[in-house]
Parts: sequence; structure tokens; C-alpha cells
Amino acid sequence: MTTTAISALPAGLARSIKRGEMITKCTRSNLRRNTSSECIFAAPGRSWHGSPCWPRSSSRRAAKQRLTRSFSNAAPASLRSPNEDDLTHFRSILAPHQIVTTLGNSSNSRNDLDPYNRDWTNRYQGHSSLVLRPQSTQQVSSILAYCHERRIPLVPRGGNTGLCGGSTPLSNEVVLSLEYMNVIHSLDASSGILSAQAGCILHDLHEYASQRGYLFPLEIGSKGTCQIGGNVSTNAGGQYYYRWGGLHGNVVGMEVVLPDGRVLRLNMAEGRSDVHGGMDSAASVGGCHRKDNTGYDLKHLFIGAEGTLGVITEVAVACPPLPTSKHAVMIVCESYSTVLEVLVAAKEELGEILSAMELMDWQTLTLVRGSLGDSSVSGEALLLDEMLDTKNDSTTASSPPLSQSTATTPQSPLYILVETQGSNSEHDASKMDSFLTRLYDSLTIRNGFLATDSKRIHTLWNIREACNPAVSRSGYVYKYDVSVPIEEYMDVAAEVKETLSSQGSSFFPETAVCVWGHLADGNAHINVVTPGIFTKDESLASHVDESVYGSVLRRRGSISAEHGIGQSKSEILGKIKDRSVLDVMVQLKQLFDPHGIMNPGKVLTSDMVSNMKS
Amino acid sequence: MTTTAISALPAGLARSIKRGEMITKCTRSNLRRNTSSECIFAAPGRSWHGSPCWPRSSSRRAAKQRLTRSFSNAAPASLRSPNEDDLTHFRSILAPHQIVTTLGNSSNSRNDLDPYNRDWTNRYQGHSSLVLRPQSTQQVSSILAYCHERRIPLVPRGGNTGLCGGSTPLSNEVVLSLEYMNVIHSLDASSGILSAQAGCILHDLHEYASQRGYLFPLEIGSKGTCQIGGNVSTNAGGQYYYRWGGLHGNVVGMEVVLPDGRVLRLNMAEGRSDVHGGMDSAASVGGCHRKDNTGYDLKHLFIGAEGTLGVITEVAVACPPLPTSKHAVMIVCESYSTVLEVLVAAKEELGEILSAMELMDWQTLTLVRGSLGDSSVSGEALLLDEMLDTKNDSTTASSPPLSQSTATTPQSPLYILVETQGSNSEHDASKMDSFLTRLYDSLTIRNGFLATDSKRIHTLWNIREACNPAVSRSGYVYKYDVSVPIEEYMDVAAEVKETLSSQGSSFFPETAVCVWGHLADGNAHINVVTPGIFTKDESLASHVDESVYGSVLRRRGSISAEHGIGQSKSEILGKIKDRSVLDVMVQLKQLFDPHGIMNPGKVLTSDMVSNMKS
Repeated sequence: MTTTAISALPAGLARSIKRGEMITKCTRSNLRRNTSSECIFAAPGRSWHGSPCWPRSSSRRAAKQRLTRSFSNAAPASLRSPNEDDLTHFRSILAPHQIVTTLGNSSNSRNDLDPYNRDWTNRYQGHSSLVLRPQSTQQVSSILAYCHERRIPLVPRGGNTGLCGGSTPLSNEVVLSLEYMNVIHSLDASSGILSAQAGCILHDLHEYASQRGYLFPLEIGSKGTCQIGGNVSTNAGGQYYYRWGGLHGNVVGMEVVLPDGRVLRLNMAEGRSDVHGGMDSAASVGGCHRKDNTGYDLKHLFIGAEGTLGVITEVAVACPPLPTSKHAVMIVCESYSTVLEVLVAAKEELGEILSAMELMDWQTLTLVRGSLGDSSVSGEALLLDEMLDTKNDSTTASSPPLSQSTATTPQSPLYILVETQGSNSEHDASKMDSFLTRLYDSLTIRNGFLATDSKRIHTLWNIREACNPAVSRSGYVYKYDVSVPIEEYMDVAAEVKETLSSQGSSFFPETAVCVWGHLADGNAHINVVTPGIFTKDESLASHVDESVYGSVLRRRGSISAEHGIGQSKSEILGKIKDRSVLDVMVQLKQLFDPHGIMNPGKVLTSDMVSNMKS
Repeated sequence: MTTTAISALPAGLARSIKRGEMITKCTRSNLRRNTSSECIFAAPGRSWHGSPCWPRSSSRRAAKQRLTRSFSNAAPASLRSPNEDDLTHFRSILAPHQIVTTLGNSSNSRNDLDPYNRDWTNRYQGHSSLVLRPQSTQQVSSILAYCHERRIPLVPRGGNTGLCGGSTPLSNEVVLSLEYMNVIHSLDASSGILSAQAGCILHDLHEYASQRGYLFPLEIGSKGTCQIGGNVSTNAGGQYYYRWGGLHGNVVGMEVVLPDGRVLRLNMAEGRSDVHGGMDSAASVGGCHRKDNTGYDLKHLFIGAEGTLGVITEVAVACPPLPTSKHAVMIVCESYSTVLEVLVAAKEELGEILSAMELMDWQTLTLVRGSLGDSSVSGEALLLDEMLDTKNDSTTASSPPLSQSTATTPQSPLYILVETQGSNSEHDASKMDSFLTRLYDSLTIRNGFLATDSKRIHTLWNIREACNPAVSRSGYVYKYDVSVPIEEYMDVAAEVKETLSSQGSSFFPETAVCVWGHLADGNAHINVVTPGIFTKDESLASHVDESVYGSVLRRRGSISAEHGIGQSKSEILGKIKDRSVLDVMVQLKQLFDPHGIMNPGKVLTSDMVSNMKS
């Protein structure tokens, strides 16, 4: 009784698609005339779900280019490195498998520490000699109290999927890895509040919530590796921000350990810390409620603080009911003005079921296609060939992906992945039908590729999520994550290209500029790549920084929309942030972490903190 | 092309309702057999939109019962009251109409100050002799810097619609009224971000946003009077919290003046302060973006701080696209177990269009009915007679509304106002149809009253929004606003009734307990009323406090879900909040407001702040 019969729906695109032909090239003819549609996917039996697009831990070590920058002077002078006496203490409170170290008589080698000293993009390198992997809040508290007392700096580490080096040591800090704190406590069936330890993998939370009829409202490409504590600490945004909002709205409870070892339970009643296991009852969420308005809401200070004010050990997240219907379409647009019209049409026609609106440029997708290999027959490769219109074209898939001939130009097409999620498949299909009809009736879109089953929808998302890894594999990436007015979304990248082009390649390596991001939020990921060169060119970096930040600030944009500050943007933060705001940030840092042991040099540079002290 | 034709929808309830009969008593017969439906509303021409349910400023003075509690000892000893010299200074920076005072040679009387010294429920009374009404951020900054320097306490004041006395002075503080800072700057057409000064009336923001295709995502009964700055300062929740989330999620930018006069612009670029007028362009929102992840997100500290850390002078709020379709139904349930089943059915059948789920008990609605008068023929009165089933019953509308015979019992019905908002009226009607069909097929609901046009939907909401004023008019109200597990929503009130009943009326005045609130959030408003007695009984207050808070805390609930702390709950906050959390709150207060001039005694008692100092 809950859904309208299909036969009652008006004839149109959604109805014209036969089952089994779920990703469909939309044309005016099959849209309006109910003709058969062309399936562009691999035949059944061919695998197109081979390897995950995002590098997992085991594949990170394969990187050949490694940086060995030294940041030994960045920590405040009063801090000291951990020594063998400290190790003896930590051995008294942790089990052997919880410690990885090259200190003392350990059997570990530097290789064992490598994964903790280098970020997955190989752009940041630390020199820690001691990794601690606590299993309980009590252990985190003990470690922090000890380090606070002795001025030993720590770097909290989640899944190491950040893009600003926030979880990579600058020097020989202790790495505090949350990987063993991975218990999902519960999901309250009535309120939809999920409670979990900070080290839980995001993908596991998705699975846990969906099995119980709820949607975990954070979706990012690294979900198979990243940890919820790291997500919250960096205030991760992601694909579903437009629909379900950010972590400041969705995190309703938190447990955090302050640098001196004090444990704050914020909108979480006492008595949960030692209880593990999936007890799905109201009581088991630890007295966490959607609405709690009892004084200063401290948890927000730790959302996005990147571990500089304390260590998040547990979170409670409010989850919406799980949508039961999902559709997605990839729209190929001739120009950015068409993209803007598609955005308006999507908001109006898809309304409350619009769940994502992801933009990608041509340059990026040629790299994604290239990363799949010349002879690939995966669904992604076949679809990309269609999208890029290169099946009979020798300039992209079969040639070096970053040659001059493939660079994005103002004439290059742009690609929008539009996704809907709702509670009634027929209603949603009807809305999607209206949306696509409007596009073909009034707009100059080049093509559309519609997916209506989960496998094919995954294919579209795999392409989107391959952008970051594909670009990272092609060379050193100067990464920017900015907010700008939506009308000017592509302008920053265009200005950077113009600047790099006008300077010529005599001063800098050859570069390519790749853009993708979250269109409806005005959040653009701008990536300047040096093809085949995997080390940073400081001169180029400074040049691109100046160009990007200048362009963003002229537009009164934000220099970090969702990736945070980490170590890569703390200097520029100090230059562009209002003095009065910076002062308050430094005062808060000093209030919570008077000895500066927590993730020194991240968010705020050590100079900012120590200058304010003196 | 955007909507399905009505004729294409399956036959069912939604289709069985003729235009002009928009609020309809649903019965099994008209639900399933497409028979004509009974219109229970007043005939056209009879006004049922007479007086607003919420008292506006002009009506507040009519209150006859006034409290004159003295809080002169509550402010820290180092603070001093404003004097004539201060007045001279303020006259040098403000125009005459911006000052209301009984100091010096002023022509104002104490009556002119009355509205600023008393809250609308007449439960809190201050003794301020000086009200300042700045018109710009610069004036706010100058006033604060002056008072900071001279240790003169201030109370920021919005629309005075709070329920915890947060904007009423305790003694002779300066009242800083934001009423003249009421300029709506702009709404960015692409991002949906609305930017406005803090003194804007919430209803005006609703109008402004809806005229531009957006929904202002905060809805509360006092919207005709309350101000957005006060809403944000108290972290107001309201009816749409379940669907569109809270202010921590929706406030994306803020301007705030610190106690020492420094102005922080948070995710709002410089240069907006002096620009007034409705310039709807991207630039005019002051560089405010949905996503800004550049360091500690300071604005959250001021959301819910109730003016104790600074004065919010401007906010930017992200608005979702305006839904074009709205439906509402009032469901009459036999028991709370049925209510819970209705909640599950609503989430499943209405999915993403479920916008509100408001519960009211029988006792409350008898008071609302009583407040409309015996012979009222308003739509609300007629509908209430149907809902309460009292058209031929002499025990409710025609008798004193709080007699023993009308008290809510476990057998009394409960009422749920369910609202949907979506982008496609036919789809929404179909979902509502499925929802109601399920209720009648499987659940033991007593009745349903469906409204499908905006006028009749307003009628349902007028009843909901009349709860607070109607109860307040009937006697002194001991008000509680709690979060509890949804399954136990009615249990706190039941325990309180049980306790009061077992004590007998020999010790206390006769009481009635009224419950309403936001069901899907687990947020219950519990109101203990002494009919006809408009002064507080301290002994009863202490008794009810103990009963309510004891019951809430046993359920690991929150003692304030959305109304905040103000002056009414600061003592209990000190008793129940974790010591470590309280310590951090006090440290933050001292960091931002070292002299304690901002709204002293609110949120944190002056004792808490000064004890921590010593």
C-alpha cells in the first residue's frame, strides 16, 4: 500500500528503461519516444568491481617517491622527544602489541613505523620513534596525562586519509593511533543515534547503520579506510553535506580526553566508557539525545580542531532513516553556464530527494580513464570512454593522459553526477524523469547516463571517487580545497591555468589543473599536478599558492572548505585570518593545552602559539 | 512537465477530499470507500484568524500578576550599576530614542522600563534603570568596551520570548536591546544563505526567504516576536528540528562582539557591517559559505551561550529550497503505545517529506479550548470540540478547564500533529494517503483530521502554538523542557502527577500537568500549573523540581532540550553537570569575559564563576 503502482505513472524516460539496462545513455529520442536504450556496460560476468579506487593501507607502501622533509624545529623548544624511560612507563600500561617503536630493545624496525610517519599522498613525512595504540579511553587519558606532565608532544592518528598532513608527525612526536578503539556501541532504534569509538572505520558505520534502517550521514571516498574520530576531528564534509548537513549538525554527543587527561563526556551520560558490545537499547547510547541545550556546547570546539585541543575517543551521531530508493545520472554539459542551469533544475525538479551534485572536469576524467589501463573492460572504463567520447579517439585513453592535447579548455565538457535518495522508488523515478525531460527540453546538455540499480550507481560513484587517487598517482599534486560563490566555481582554476600558462614552462615543470568537487556547496577541489614528477617544487608551490589563494580571497572565499588546515595551510591561515579571530583561537589552544603537546604545528603554527605566550 | 497529473494517481484518501473541505475528519469509510467527507470547520466568512495565540509586545502589559523578586546579590561584588556619568557617556554615542532610562533628568518613567524588566510569562522580574538600543555593530562594540572597562553588567535582550529568564535582568544591569538592529542584508540566490542583523524578527526572515524561494529553517511559536539573535543565543529548537536540523548545523556565519568590544566576523568576510539594504548578490552575503573549515569554529561557542560570552550582532543562515507542497493531519490516539506506532509509520511512509511530529495531551488541549471562549466559532474551537469529543459534553469547554474531571489520565487520548513538506503535491498526497491507510488498517487510532490547504494547516498549527500561551494564562506555570528516550516520553509527567497526587493537596495548591512537545526528537515540554494562582509557591517549586529532574536523570535525559538555562536552571545545572565539563565552561567564561559583565547569573551562577576564580 505504500507505493504507487508503476502503471499509474506517466510514460516517460524512467519507464522507458528496461530492467538489465540500468545505466543508459539518455538521448532525446529515448527520452521522449520510448525507444530502446543503448547499454554501454560490460557484459555480465566481466568484473568491473576489481580494485577499490582508494588506496588501502597495504598499497600505500608501494609508492616510490618519498619525501624526507625535516620539521624538527617546528615544535616549541620546551617539548621533548620520548625516551626509553617513557617507553618503560608506557609498557607498564599497554600490552606489547599496542606499542610500535624503535626505542630501546624493541624488535621493530623503522619500516614498521613508516605507515605512521608518512601520509598516503606521500607529501608529508614525520620521524616518530614511538607509536601508541590505546584500546580504551582510560588508556588515552593515562597517556595524555603522562605526556602533559613531561611535555612530550603527541599526534593523534585516525585512518591517515587526510589531505593536509594533520595526522603526520612533523618530527619525533609520539603517534597516538586510535585504530584499536573500534567498537560500535549501539544504534538506538527510536532516535537513530549511533554511538561508537573514535577508531571505527567509516564504512563499518555505514554497514551497521544501514542494517538497522538508518543512514550514516557522512559519505567520503576514503570511507573504507578513514576513521570516524578523524572525520570528526577534521570536520569532514563529503558528498552528502548538501542533503544531510555537516558534522556540527549531526554529531550529537562526544567523549573527548583533554591534554591533561581529564575526560569530558558531552551529551553522553556517564557509565559508557567500559561497556563494549552492540546493545541496541535506549539506555545503551549513554544518555545521548538529539537535543541538549545545557550550557556551552563544548563538543563543537573539537569538531575540526584536528586533535590540537584534545583527543576524541567516542562520538554519537544522529542518523536519518535509510532511504529505500536511489537513482543517479551523469550529465555531460557543454559549458559551466549549462552546469548552473542543471543545478537550478535539479533543486527544483528533484527537491527533497536531491542527495548529491558532484562536478568533475574533463582533465580529471581523462586521468581517471588513464588509471584504468588501455585495455580495461570494466564498467567504469567503458562508461568513461562514452563520457569522454574517445572510443575512436587516439588522444586520450591510448595516449599519455596529461599531454597538451588533453588539457581542459573552456570548450571542454563538464560532468555532473546527480544522485537522488528517497523513500518511494516510483515517486523518485518520476521526479528524475521530470528533471531529465527539462534538461533535454530547455538546456544544451550533451549527454546523460542514467543508473537505476545499485551496481550501476556504484559505477558512477567509483568514477567520482577515483578522481583523487588517479590524480595523486599521476604526479605530485598541489591540492586546494576552497569555497567560492557557486557562479565562480570554475574561475579560480581558470585563473591559475592562465597564470601558469602566461609564465611558460621555462620556470616550472609542466602542469595540469584538475577540478572536481561538491557543486551545490560551492566547494571546489583544485589540483595542480606535475605529470610524472612526484616531488614538490617549492618555487612552483609558492607560485600556485599565491595564485589560488589570491583568486579565492578576491572572491571572499574560504581557503579550506572541508579538508581542514593540518600542517599544509597553517602558515597561510596565519596570514589571512582576522587577527582578532586568530587571537581567540590561540587563547583557546593555550587554555586547553597550556604546554602545547597536542599535535604541535597543526592548525596553528608553533610560532603563533609561542608568540602569543610571550 | 514537473508534476504528475492528479488523474494519474491511484484512487485513495487524498483524492477523495473535495476542494473546500480541506480539513476533513478521516474515517475508515471515507478513507477506503471514497465517500463524502465531513467538514468540521466554520463556514466561510467566519473569522478564525482573530488574535494571534502568542502574546505580542503590546499585550504583555496586561498581565495582572507580577513578581518582584530581588536578585540584587546575585551579581559579582566587583560589578557596579550604571550611574548618571555613564548615562552622559552613552548619550554621546547614541541618539535620544536609543536610550530608555530613569537615571538623571530623563523623562522616562519606570513603566517605560517595565517591558525590559519583566519576561512575558511574568515569572522573572528585573530592576534595570537603563536600556540601550544600539543600531550598529560599532555602537554595540563601544558600549561593551565602556562597560568592560568600568565593570558595568549588561543583559542582551532579543524578543523577550525565552522561557528561562535569560534576557531579564536579575538586578540593575544595563539592558542591551537589539531591537533596532533589524536589517535583513541579503539572501544569496545560489547558496540560499540569508544574512541579517541579530534584531530581525523571525517571522520577517520567514517572509523574506520564502519570497525568494527558500525556507528559513527555524520555526517556533513565538516567531512573530522573537529575534534571530535571541534564537541563536538560546539555540532555539522548534518544530522543524527533526527535518531541517538545529542552529549548530544551519548557522554558517556570525558576527559577534566580545565583552571587551572586539568584533569577530566568523565565516563572514570583512566589510559588511556598514552596508544595509537588500542587495541579493553573491558578494553581499559577506563572503559567507556553506563550508568553511579553517580552524576552531568559534561561532558554536556563542550558539546557546545566552549572551554570557558576547553579543551576537549578525548571523548568516543556510536555507533549504522552499517546499511547494504542505500537508498536515491531526491524529487522535488512544494510548502512548499507539503514538509510538504512528511515529514508526510516519517515518516509513512519509520518509523525507516528514517535517514535524508534535504531540499534545488532552489536558493541554482542554486549556487551549477553554482559552478560546465558550461560544467561539473559530475554526480552532470547532476542531477542538471534535478532537476533544466535547460537543455534547458539559465537562470541558463549558466548565472550568482544570477541574478534576478534566485531568489527563492514562486513558485520555493523545494528539499528534503530523506535517509533511515536499516538492511534489501529488507525490506527497500519495505518501500521506499510504500513511493514513496504514494507520486505519493496522493501528487503533481514534480519529484523524486532515488539512491540505494552507489556511486549514494554519488552523492545526494555531492549536499547537496556543498550548504555551493558553497554559500560561491559566495560572503560574512550573515549566520543564526535557529530552528523554522516546519510549519514555510520557513517563516523566506521569511520575510527577503520581508524586503530586500521593502528597495530596493539603501541602500544595491544586495542580494540573500539561505535556506537549516535539515527539520525533524525544523533547517533552512538561508544565505543572496552579489554576488561578499566578504566583510562585517556592515549596511546590522545589517539590516539582525534585520530581521532574529526578525522573529525567534516572532516564539519563537532558534537563534542557531547547529552552536553555537562563536564570531558572543555572542552579540545577551546577548540581547535575559533570564537574569537569562545568570547570571548562567556567574557564571559557573567564577567558571571554574576565570581568563577568555579560549577563551575570545566567547559564552559570555568579557563585560558580567567582568560586572558580578564588
